[in-house]
Amino acid sequence: MKKLWQHCHAATMAGGKYSIIEDAAIVTDGARIEWIGPRAAAPDMGEGERVDLAGAWVTPGLIDCHTHLVFGGDRSGEFEERLEGVSYAEIAARGGGIASTVRATREASEDALFAAAKARALGLMREGVTALEVKSGYGLDLANERKMLTVARRLGEALPLTVRATCLAAHALPPEYANRADDYIGYICDEMLPALAGDGLVDAVDAFCEHIAFSTQQVERVFRRARELGVPVKLHAEQLSSLHGSSLAARYRALSADHLEYMTEDDAIAMAQSGTVAVLLPGAFYMLRETQLPPVDALRRHGVPIALASDLNPGTSPVLSLRMMLNMGCTLFRLTPEESLAGVTMHAAKALGLQATHGSLEAGKAADFVAWTIARPAELSYWLGGAPPNRVVRGGAEIDFGRIDR
Amino acid sequence: MKKLWQHCHAATMAGGKYSIIEDAAIVTDGARIEWIGPRAAAPDMGEGERVDLAGAWVTPGLIDCHTHLVFGGDRSGEFEERLEGVSYAEIAARGGGIASTVRATREASEDALFAAAKARALGLMREGVTALEVKSGYGLDLANERKMLTVARRLGEALPLTVRATCLAAHALPPEYANRADDYIGYICDEMLPALAGDGLVDAVDAFCEHIAFSTQQVERVFRRARELGVPVKLHAEQLSSLHGSSLAARYRALSADHLEYMTEDDAIAMAQSGTVAVLLPGAFYMLRETQLPPVDALRRHGVPIALASDLNPGTSPVLSLRMMLNMGCTLFRLTPEESLAGVTMHAAKALGLQATHGSLEAGKAADFVAWTIARPAELSYWLGGAPPNRVVRGGAEIDFGRIDR
Ligand SMILES: [Zn+2]
Ligand SMILES: [Zn+2]
Repeated sequence: MKKLWQHCHAATMAGGKYSIIEDAAIVTDGARIEWIGPRAAAPDMGEGERVDLAGAWVTPGLIDCHTHLVFGGDRSGEFEERLEGVSYAEIAARGGGIASTVRATREASEDALFAAAKARALGLMREGVTALEVKSGYGLDLANERKMLTVARRLGEALPLTVRATCLAAHALPPEYANRADDYIGYICDEMLPALAGDGLVDAVDAFCEHIAFSTQQVERVFRRARELGVPVKLHAEQLSSLHGSSLAARYRALSADHLEYMTEDDAIAMAQSGTVAVLLPGAFYMLRETQLPPVDALRRHGVPIALASDLNPGTSPVLSLRMMLNMGCTLFRLTPEESLAGVTMHAAKALGLQATHGSLEAGKAADFVAWTIARPAELSYWLGGAPPNRVVRGGAEIDFGRIDR
Repeated sequence: MKKLWQHCHAATMAGGKYSIIEDAAIVTDGARIEWIGPRAAAPDMGEGERVDLAGAWVTPGLIDCHTHLVFGGDRSGEFEERLEGVSYAEIAARGGGIASTVRATREASEDALFAAAKARALGLMREGVTALEVKSGYGLDLANERKMLTVARRLGEALPLTVRATCLAAHALPPEYANRADDYIGYICDEMLPALAGDGLVDAVDAFCEHIAFSTQQVERVFRRARELGVPVKLHAEQLSSLHGSSLAARYRALSADHLEYMTEDDAIAMAQSGTVAVLLPGAFYMLRETQLPPVDALRRHGVPIALASDLNPGTSPVLSLRMMLNMGCTLFRLTPEESLAGVTMHAAKALGLQATHGSLEAGKAADFVAWTIARPAELSYWLGGAPPNRVVRGGAEIDFGRIDR
């Protein structure tokens, strides 16, 4: 069914720029955009439905391209203890940190994980998110990684939301493989990835490349296996030190390399050549009170597309607001508001391999968009907090949050 | 009419501590709390209404004790230009910065200011704010300061919200007094304060003590006049340099001294002795990317009550979320979650002179409280963003945001 959405201005984000159309109109046909342009040039709609957007600004639906939003438990207790003076060593010694999330995730039923993840996803959606990525990585064995990825798939079925599932089995070493990282990588490559990809649960494969996690050699074994299975890769790289994981990712034509505070100019050049997106995660930078800034100027100079994401996770980034990341991208990383908005639309789509169908308002793409009561697009980055969007439209239909069963 | 609110846990914040009651009940009689305690000990309610809070945590209504939420225009355009590389000098030369807000506020009608301020207040209220302060300070002449303070009064009448109005005429030098700061202070003391206080528009008098604003001598003239008029004082002090405005404020038994990044231990001792609250403003610290931290340890050591506020203003703190300040208080200033929560409840009440009636859940106080779906109070500080409260109760009645005319 065709609809004409009018009386709005559009920041289409075509080409990763505002690409503004003042007094715009959008024609949707079912779940797709059929036409977008100045209202004066809109095609004749005949009997089609007309929606008055009352002067709102319309942007593409926001895309959160890096989340760990399926997890058991939370770590607010640890957060409090740390601030009360308990040392990290003490918390780790009693099984805290990521180990506690792995334990809670393994213990949780699929339904319990689903319910908690759904509530988090809805929080993001109310702020305009229409697509997001979910990583596994707290199961760390076949059954529990499958459970997490299944929850990701169920989220995409239960909600008006595009969900991409990423297998991050190489996130941390599970207790049963303590001091046997190479064996665990073998288990991932020989058993987990083939089984999970075979079940159709894996849209991408990710790993955590860091001295406290896995080496570039270990990551490369995972990447090689992913390539054999025909699944694209991504990488947590250069967050705490410079191992050149981002260059490795580029060699495997990764969709994205993420974090990147310690990347070098050569890494940026490699990423530019492979078309790998730089996903910056200001929430983790902020929560960890980091001071090493990602090299935004080098990324700009070499034309690496920059995305922003929540990194929503219970340890280092308990961020339930992608809007907040627009401000943090500007305030902490000195992105412009236009770059921040491209980072959660066009470039975020590319980081998920969805750039042909999502991320901008263009004829032929998904009719996923958000109407905001603002005077200019920069307001989306300027305010910390603020009113939710007036309307979130996904697949050509306005989401009625009141009718989504919590 | 009496109501029993039950099936909840309460962080009463009595004494500025969590002061937790598990499986609590609250009896309200009209707009007041008549009784609060363990449900098992609740008084017999007879026919009274019962409200099931379904296991939520209840906290006092949040109090935002430092805002500039009445203003014309916004500065998102400048925010964008700065990030695109336009220098501050260039923006100032063409009348940007606070001068642009003064101009826009003077040009705006009272009704236009009211409508914009109401939308901002509603955003805060949806996150659990039941009381807030509004400062004038963008009018800078009698008519326009009166207009701003009248809007503050109207907000308190139109919304289920306690509003305290603070006259901040000594915020900046208006253009008509360029290079005549002492004359402007004379105008404030001789004409503005008597007239505005006479109109019943002034609950407190504030000033901006800083080398880019007013000197301690000038501030003291304002404080002396406020004392003569019987109005309590507050001060923006020690934000960018150490002028010992906070010690001056303490000498005048100020309700609060605010910002305080550059305060000394002696200032803290003076504030402790006068019972002056330290209002920390992490939003401005964050937006300005400051690195000088307020001396939280000294404040603790000397027993100065610490409050947190949004500092909502269009220039240095476009913060529409007091929730966010809980996290920033912890993450940036290393407050504990308990201190952060006390900072937006009990100590914020004291910063407004409302500690006898607001800020904690105790018999006799206002029935202003918020029910949250969380597992422990620390979650309020831990998450960035997240679900709004289930219920916001003000004066014993749940606020129905759907029925408030926007
Ligand atoms: Zn991550
Ligand atoms: Zn202020």
